[in-house]
Amino acid sequence: MSGTIELLEAQPNPPEPGTLALLAAFIDAARACASACTACAAGCLAESDAGRLAQCAATCLDCADVCDAAARIALRPLSAARREAMAALVQACAGMCELTARECFRHEMHHQHCRLCMEASRACLEACETLLEAI
Amino acid sequence: MSGTIELLEAQPNPPEPGTLALLAAFIDAARACASACTACAAGCLAESDAGRLAQCAATCLDCADVCDAAARIALRPLSAARREAMAALVQACAGMCELTARECFRHEMHHQHCRLCMEASRACLEACETLLEAI
Amino acid sequence: MSGTIELLEAQPNPPEPGTLALLAAFIDAARACASACTACAAGCLAESDAGRLAQCAATCLDCADVCDAAARIALRPLSAARREAMAALVQACAGMCELTARECFRHEMHHQHCRLCMEASRACLEACETLLEAI
Amino acid sequence: MSGTIELLEAQPNPPEPGTLALLAAFIDAARACASACTACAAGCLAESDAGRLAQCAATCLDCADVCDAAARIALRPLSAARREAMAALVQACAGMCELTARECFRHEMHHQHCRLCMEASRACLEACETLLEAI
Repeated sequence: MSGTIELLEAQPNPPEPGTLALLAAFIDAARACASACTACAAGCLAESDAGRLAQCAATCLDCADVCDAAARIALRPLSAARREAMAALVQACAGMCELTARECFRHEMHHQHCRLCMEASRACLEACETLLEAI
Repeated sequence: MSGTIELLEAQPNPPEPGTLALLAAFIDAARACASACTACAAGCLAESDAGRLAQCAATCLDCADVCDAAARIALRPLSAARREAMAALVQACAGMCELTARECFRHEMHHQHCRLCMEASRACLEACETLLEAI
Repeated sequence: MSGTIELLEAQPNPPEPGTLALLAAFIDAARACASACTACAAGCLAESDAGRLAQCAATCLDCADVCDAAARIALRPLSAARREAMAALVQACAGMCELTARECFRHEMHHQHCRLCMEASRACLEACETLLEAI
Repeated sequence: MSGTIELLEAQPNPPEPGTLALLAAFIDAARACASACTACAAGCLAESDAGRLAQCAATCLDCADVCDAAARIALRPLSAARREAMAALVQACAGMCELTARECFRHEMHHQHCRLCMEASRACLEACETLLEAI
């Protein structure tokens, strides 16, 4: 966690500490969600009931892609010009996380990777919403 | 171009032909823009006046990331549930393309990679706007 | 196709025309393969026999990730220092394409997305091998 | 750290604990390196001496792409068939990390983002080498 704060603090003209902390929390949540979604999609495909989990895997793939892109972009300095596009991207990220959390909730009793992915996407959704209020 | 249409047509329950054509055009424009942005950022960094082009390179990196993610997600079937998150992502893509087109316009007289990137990001911006009206 | 050649020619100190043409062909093949793999994985997950296609989808996901990363990196100038790491990456790309071609071959009679993906991964494998001989 | 171990343990037929721990350590190191490289490239571009740091930024971009792709692929089950391609990818990752560590070492006295990136790429290089001995 503190690693990401350090990365943002090391850039020239870092954002003020409050925004920086929210950005770092978002980046960590998005990275963790991207990993959980990638692992959950792969886990779904390796289960004996993969056919029933296909929709879950598909949802996770979208979520992983948007989380990874959003994390990368949030690691770059947040200029005023980029703020609007960044907000739309975080909105997209929140939407995909919500779909993933809902889909994995349907399977979390039977599959541990769905439980972990549900938790990670809920945490990322929350980080998105907190960031959207601040930027 | 037709390659991407074929990819979308080959999926079960493809969208109706009009939407499918717009999705394919968006995917092609986003992929082309991601490549042009990646090459332009690398080109900026390899120029003797790289210092003056640093802002251009940074803008291109954001644009490449969001274009690649959007293209991947658009290649997956467009369920009703994903429509809203997808629209926010295309909105983010449009915003980044607009910033890139504006930034590269400042350098396109002196650097061919900026001219190509300006054209690709304008084309992608247009494809975003057309898609947003339809989905 | 010619678009990618232009992108590489526009960079300062482009490679000599023969290498440049091979790099451009590789980039185009890798981008096309990444798209075909992304669409095929999504197609597999949307089929009624998704359970039987789970292994195919998993293989396609790996292939898409390595193809997209390799295409991005090949769009940046090929310094002598990067040559060895680039060659290992193209080797990894070739290996994933071979697995994908073999897996999709098993389903290409029944699923058009597998036929298209098999063709794209074979073409990318060939482009990898041609590039590896030249760099 | 333990988060990634949990993700791998949650998949059906996880690798034996020793290999699983090495994979998790590699994934964490590659994700951390991708973030450090992305932030360092952006930091280089935002410095007043961006021109002098252009080569550093370019090296970091390659490294971020290969680290992110390798982390994603390592999150999917390691079948025997994929082992060879995976090894080539980890080899590519090691090569890019070595170049990044060497390049950032030249600037680490003056730029904190280069010091953090040097540390992250050295740690990832080590994780690559440990994994390569085991798979």
